[in-house]
Amino acid sequence: MDIISESTERGVVERRFDLKVADEVVPGIIWTPEGTTEPRPLILIGHGGTQHKRVANVLGLARRFVRHLGFSAVAIDAPDHGERVTDDEAANVARQRLEGRIASGPGRGTEVSDDEARRWIERAKRGTTDWMATIDALEAEPGLSDGRFGYWGLSMGTLLGVPLVAREPRISAAVLGLAGLGKLAGGSGYEAAARSISIPILFVFQWHDELMSRQSGIDLFDALGSTEKTMHVNPGGHVAIPLFERDSYDDFFRRHLGSG
Amino acid sequence: MDIISESTERGVVERRFDLKVADEVVPGIIWTPEGTTEPRPLILIGHGGTQHKRVANVLGLARRFVRHLGFSAVAIDAPDHGERVTDDEAANVARQRLEGRIASGPGRGTEVSDDEARRWIERAKRGTTDWMATIDALEAEPGLSDGRFGYWGLSMGTLLGVPLVAREPRISAAVLGLAGLGKLAGGSGYEAAARSISIPILFVFQWHDELMSRQSGIDLFDALGSTEKTMHVNPGGHVAIPLFERDSYDDFFRRHLGSG
Repeated sequence: MDIISESTERGVVERRFDLKVADEVVPGIIWTPEGTTEPRPLILIGHGGTQHKRVANVLGLARRFVRHLGFSAVAIDAPDHGERVTDDEAANVARQRLEGRIASGPGRGTEVSDDEARRWIERAKRGTTDWMATIDALEAEPGLSDGRFGYWGLSMGTLLGVPLVAREPRISAAVLGLAGLGKLAGGSGYEAAARSISIPILFVFQWHDELMSRQSGIDLFDALGSTEKTMHVNPGGHVAIPLFERDSYDDFFRRHLGSG
Repeated sequence: MDIISESTERGVVERRFDLKVADEVVPGIIWTPEGTTEPRPLILIGHGGTQHKRVANVLGLARRFVRHLGFSAVAIDAPDHGERVTDDEAANVARQRLEGRIASGPGRGTEVSDDEARRWIERAKRGTTDWMATIDALEAEPGLSDGRFGYWGLSMGTLLGVPLVAREPRISAAVLGLAGLGKLAGGSGYEAAARSISIPILFVFQWHDELMSRQSGIDLFDALGSTEKTMHVNPGGHVAIPLFERDSYDDFFRRHLGSG
């Protein structure tokens, strides 16, 4: 893990890093409380589709976890996202397509093609490899991790998060949501991964999501194997989760990862 | 409002009162922080079927609202409950029937008879009258209410709470749940009351409730006219809401009623 730069803003230290994973460089950011080298719980933040490791909501959450919980937070660019975009034009097309599906209204954009579903599964595999290597590197950093890890990731962050959380025993609590089972049910391995999860889950879902049907979201919530799992349903579309749900994330991680 | 007795335990003053409403006496309890006469927000607590104003979960919640939020809390015996039971045998039969329905397993006890539905509507009318008279009396007590009221009531507390919250403009936020629309949909006035509600609602629902189908619960959540409403779904039966949901009640009332 190579630290590229470091800055501090209102009590939060932000360090930009590069991590070599197989033949790729995964760029990431670590946020920690200023003025301490005490190991603490780490929240891994998985951003949404067409986003990157430092979009406003990721940055806001990371700073919040540091300031409210006394934890550290980490985000990395997902495969084909952020600084890992190798084809700017393809990324623009993807972004426009996603925005078009959201603009098309509730329930209109629920169908993805078989090809698209296969690409998601493939991307989720790469994402899992990236995060597991990142956790290894975070554990190796002196004074950073106390061995407790949480995961927060909605939408694409859940598409990548479900297989990750299923495979990675070091993650002990996760916030997931804005995602459904739909085309990913059955033989792809995604549903099986969901069913094998046993850690506590907070699952947030939007009742008028333009990208997922209600049934698809309920199916994914039902598939999760965890004994402790809660679904928070709010009215509104994919990008309209009420800000007060952030209090729920705090409560949830505080409950399961203890104090920072 | 006649204060019958007063006691104090670990910072919480508990006052037992009687209130004359039409030709009945409604018995209730007020819980307030010790050593202050500053008016503050009041949470009205509506107990469940076959319960009363001082069962363990009502008492626990009331003390919690006082200690965590600095609010006051009030519970009254619902019609035909607690000290208002005039026919002990009928009450025992009702309790056994309810326990039987819960014991019969998920979704088995969802059907109530038309007669039973009519009795619920009638009881809800009486409950609304009781609560509105209680709010009048609470406002008249010096140093008690600052004009802000919340309502917390699940199961029968929601059956009585929906018409109450719909009619009573002094209540500005409510926790409801463990209840569905089912037989109460349509012309009974209950569904219309739900649709007329516009205050923020936290709606808790159990995914394996023995008394309500999932669809019935979702239908009631959908019927609520509020722009801000959140449904919290947890696995388990009617009486198995996870204790951590109490943190959600705190967050919710703190957000909408301010600080005590």
